[in-house]
Amino acid sequence: MDKNILNSRTITQVGLLVNDIEATSQAYADFFGVEKPNWFWTDTADKAQTEYKGEASVARAKLAFFDMGSLQLELIEPDEHPSTWRDHLNQYGEGPHHIAFVIDGMKEKIALMEKNGMALVQKGEYTGGRYAYMDTFPTLKVMLELLENDKK
Amino acid sequence: MDKNILNSRTITQVGLLVNDIEATSQAYADFFGVEKPNWFWTDTADKAQTEYKGEASVARAKLAFFDMGSLQLELIEPDEHPSTWRDHLNQYGEGPHHIAFVIDGMKEKIALMEKNGMALVQKGEYTGGRYAYMDTFPTLKVMLELLENDKK
Repeated sequence: MDKNILNSRTITQVGLLVNDIEATSQAYADFFGVEKPNWFWTDTADKAQTEYKGEASVARAKLAFFDMGSLQLELIEPDEHPSTWRDHLNQYGEGPHHIAFVIDGMKEKIALMEKNGMALVQKGEYTGGRYAYMDTFPTLKVMLELLENDKK
Repeated sequence: MDKNILNSRTITQVGLLVNDIEATSQAYADFFGVEKPNWFWTDTADKAQTEYKGEASVARAKLAFFDMGSLQLELIEPDEHPSTWRDHLNQYGEGPHHIAFVIDGMKEKIALMEKNGMALVQKGEYTGGRYAYMDTFPTLKVMLELLENDKK
């Protein structure tokens, strides 16, 4: 395997799949004594340009974020269209889905990971950046998400 | 629910269950470009005083830790004796098991969580402190571990 593939080892996010983002957000807000954040929909397909397993997908998800020390906890309630979120939730139920790392050079990182046997699962755009979920489960026993933020 | 139960929202650890701690440690070391840490066994029952579902257990696990930014990633390879590690691995396979928080006042925190419907799953001692796994899955969609370190 190539070494130090991401050039980072700072976990910036832990993502959990949930069936009811309202209920779980409220539980987190109460348990940790913070305001319940508003959830929001990921962008529509024209903006998000979501690709799942190499095919364009109109899938969207409701997202809510909690600041947990130096990282974010992300709650994800997917819609019914094909996505890693929906498939993982259907197959494994609610619970952890990924850990995320901020990287530079998305195309190069995806290419390097694919060369090392870790396939691209899903990618998309959001305001200010883009993401990619990589099939790291066989190797690292958890899915990794790469996040690239546009330079300001 | 009582509010701000842990008096902390800093995730200090993400714990993953694995079948082969040597192989997965090597994969993490290569992928993130760090030295492979040595794994070690949790303490024997006389020291660890492990209780799982209210019963004493001689269960142990091999542990390896990686510094990932501001938190630790923990790999856990359990032995065959009864524990949350072994049962979770048998039921769900390899992957995320818990997120951990450092707290003060273990007994009081466990009592407060139990009052709020989150049962104690497993607890034990380690050199310098103690841990408790709490059944937060129905509420928070992930298991929480409480860590209390002795005052120096």
